[in-house]
Amino acid sequence: MYTDHQILRIPGPTPIPPSIQRAMTQPMIGHRSQDMKDLLHGVKDKLKPIFGTNEDVLIYTASGTAALETAVVNAVQPGDEVIVIVSGAFGDRFTKICEEYHIKVHKYDVNWGEAADPEQLTQYLKSIPTVKAVFATYCETSTGVLNPIKQLAKVVHQESEALFIVDGVSCIGGTETKMDKWGLDIVVTGSQKAMMLPAGLAFVAASKRAWKVIEKNSHPRFYLDMRRYRDKLQEDASPFTPAVSLLLGLKQALQLIEEEGLSTVFQRHHLMAKMTRDAFHALDIPLLTTDMDASPTVTAVKPNDFSSEDLRRELRSKFGLTIAGGQQHLKGNIFRIGHMGYCSPADVLQIISLVEVGLQSIDKTIELGTGVKAAQTAYLDI
Amino acid sequence: MYTDHQILRIPGPTPIPPSIQRAMTQPMIGHRSQDMKDLLHGVKDKLKPIFGTNEDVLIYTASGTAALETAVVNAVQPGDEVIVIVSGAFGDRFTKICEEYHIKVHKYDVNWGEAADPEQLTQYLKSIPTVKAVFATYCETSTGVLNPIKQLAKVVHQESEALFIVDGVSCIGGTETKMDKWGLDIVVTGSQKAMMLPAGLAFVAASKRAWKVIEKNSHPRFYLDMRRYRDKLQEDASPFTPAVSLLLGLKQALQLIEEEGLSTVFQRHHLMAKMTRDAFHALDIPLLTTDMDASPTVTAVKPNDFSSEDLRRELRSKFGLTIAGGQQHLKGNIFRIGHMGYCSPADVLQIISLVEVGLQSIDKTIELGTGVKAAQTAYLDI
Repeated sequence: MYTDHQILRIPGPTPIPPSIQRAMTQPMIGHRSQDMKDLLHGVKDKLKPIFGTNEDVLIYTASGTAALETAVVNAVQPGDEVIVIVSGAFGDRFTKICEEYHIKVHKYDVNWGEAADPEQLTQYLKSIPTVKAVFATYCETSTGVLNPIKQLAKVVHQESEALFIVDGVSCIGGTETKMDKWGLDIVVTGSQKAMMLPAGLAFVAASKRAWKVIEKNSHPRFYLDMRRYRDKLQEDASPFTPAVSLLLGLKQALQLIEEEGLSTVFQRHHLMAKMTRDAFHALDIPLLTTDMDASPTVTAVKPNDFSSEDLRRELRSKFGLTIAGGQQHLKGNIFRIGHMGYCSPADVLQIISLVEVGLQSIDKTIELGTGVKAAQTAYLDI
Repeated sequence: MYTDHQILRIPGPTPIPPSIQRAMTQPMIGHRSQDMKDLLHGVKDKLKPIFGTNEDVLIYTASGTAALETAVVNAVQPGDEVIVIVSGAFGDRFTKICEEYHIKVHKYDVNWGEAADPEQLTQYLKSIPTVKAVFATYCETSTGVLNPIKQLAKVVHQESEALFIVDGVSCIGGTETKMDKWGLDIVVTGSQKAMMLPAGLAFVAASKRAWKVIEKNSHPRFYLDMRRYRDKLQEDASPFTPAVSLLLGLKQALQLIEEEGLSTVFQRHHLMAKMTRDAFHALDIPLLTTDMDASPTVTAVKPNDFSSEDLRRELRSKFGLTIAGGQQHLKGNIFRIGHMGYCSPADVLQIISLVEVGLQSIDKTIELGTGVKAAQTAYLDI
């Protein structure tokens, strides 16, 4: 094996662009210095269009789970009733956090691999109209589903007074999010997916409606208290010691997104998903989700006549290519390809060409080049 | 365009592996310190198998041309007669350097794209038996030809007392070189090709026969004087201030080569060349050289029904992929793909898939996937 050649194509963490790597190796700056104020001042406004909001986007030094917990401890209280839409492992995580805080969870279970149905959510809300919040996962990383967040938000607001809280960890920055326009009340994400950074930063934004609830919420919280972050952000500062190198990287990540153009970034992700899906369709290998429910950032493949684990092992040992397996009950049954953040159509063509070789190596007979051709065609059809 | 995504596939400079990048950013060390002695002590023996020699491999802080000039000013003198085998732009460079020093050059001109013929060289040597040296290019970067150095060396020694001096810049480290066994008298290379480093270091090794000539040579030279480098290397030191960061990188490059295994490195290069060539054969696009004369490190393609320059422009603007054009009279007529150093079969599959898209984009009709399939097949046929 070629020892220093790793190709990381899991749905996060994702590879880091060289210019971000360089940015993160700049000398440390004091976290109470003018340099830090300038840095935070520069990044805070550039985060807003990524969320599609005019509200503040708070920056936490923490990973994505802390951002989920932030939404819970700031927006609801023990004893509150909430609905959690569970369409995979990460919807499940919202449930666990809520239960830890003695919040009464009504689960809307969606078959893994399918998207939540706004009609179904309407029925749920009609039967439990007193819920304080509805939690949903935008892209369900474990299945590659992109839930119809805009339509779900509409239903939540039509049928209830609940806040609509969205985990956008594995797609914010890679797919369009119109927080204000769609009526999303809290949106959270992490740094290690479409944001092209290592894990360690989390981002949280709240609507004006949500802030009213958060302000009044007496539930104890300290490090995760959104009010502290908002108040400090007005002064271009952070309430606690921030991860300085990651913030230096964030500045460069936002610079890269600005240079490419946000809508171009979204188009690229959409194209990469189409190339990937078209390739597997052409190879006649089933996908876990329908094209309609598919996320632009991750694709789950559900083979019926070869082992996902054999393929993953083969790709890793032959090419240093790492793709993800399944989680929980999908473990061993699917494999997942991340195509987000620092990933280009050129990378997708490489992944597909390697997957084809891997399939042939594990004796799954395919016509070599078929998937690549389909992906090339998808690219050229733009 | 995705701004921070560059794919460099020219025949040098080549991409730098991440671990070498990291090695080169270590803190500076004094060039007369014990640390530097330890560093040079560690690398000097590891260079020898790459050249296939038990002699010292001298390390110059300079680029490849300085290494060519080093061979000239140390091994021959003004007024000496030499033969230069010119099979491309780099053979030509040897001629220019020799002429600058008033050395009488007999050029053995080989058609660009063809390899030198040992039989032909025999005839040359028979007609000019007094030559002091024969200069040859191992891999002619400008055409992708690998000259039959072993056979040429045999002829030189059978027919003359001349030293056989070899420019190995674009293949040493990527293809087998048996300097001692084959009777190569001076072999030089640079750091920025199969050695996986930035340009800035050059390596020069000489046979015992060559050293006798070098010792006696009164031709003036200072910075390029091989004796100074050899004498200092005995003390694990360098005669002049060396490029410290590049030496730190060299240590890691040699470590990577050792981990992979030198023969595996050579096999990988051979395989990458075969994958590339098979792809173009399958696409029915002519190559400049025959398979027999082909270098494992670079492939030159000579299209007859589309423009190399259009393709290069397209690949660069669409994918950030840089491949090389032609030099001198081949400018505009060929394109060249480097597959050496930090390059893997996975990279070759990517290059071919992108070239196919590029061809389609410039209206050269091909069957998409055909080249990729041929390259995949070459890979799997191991």
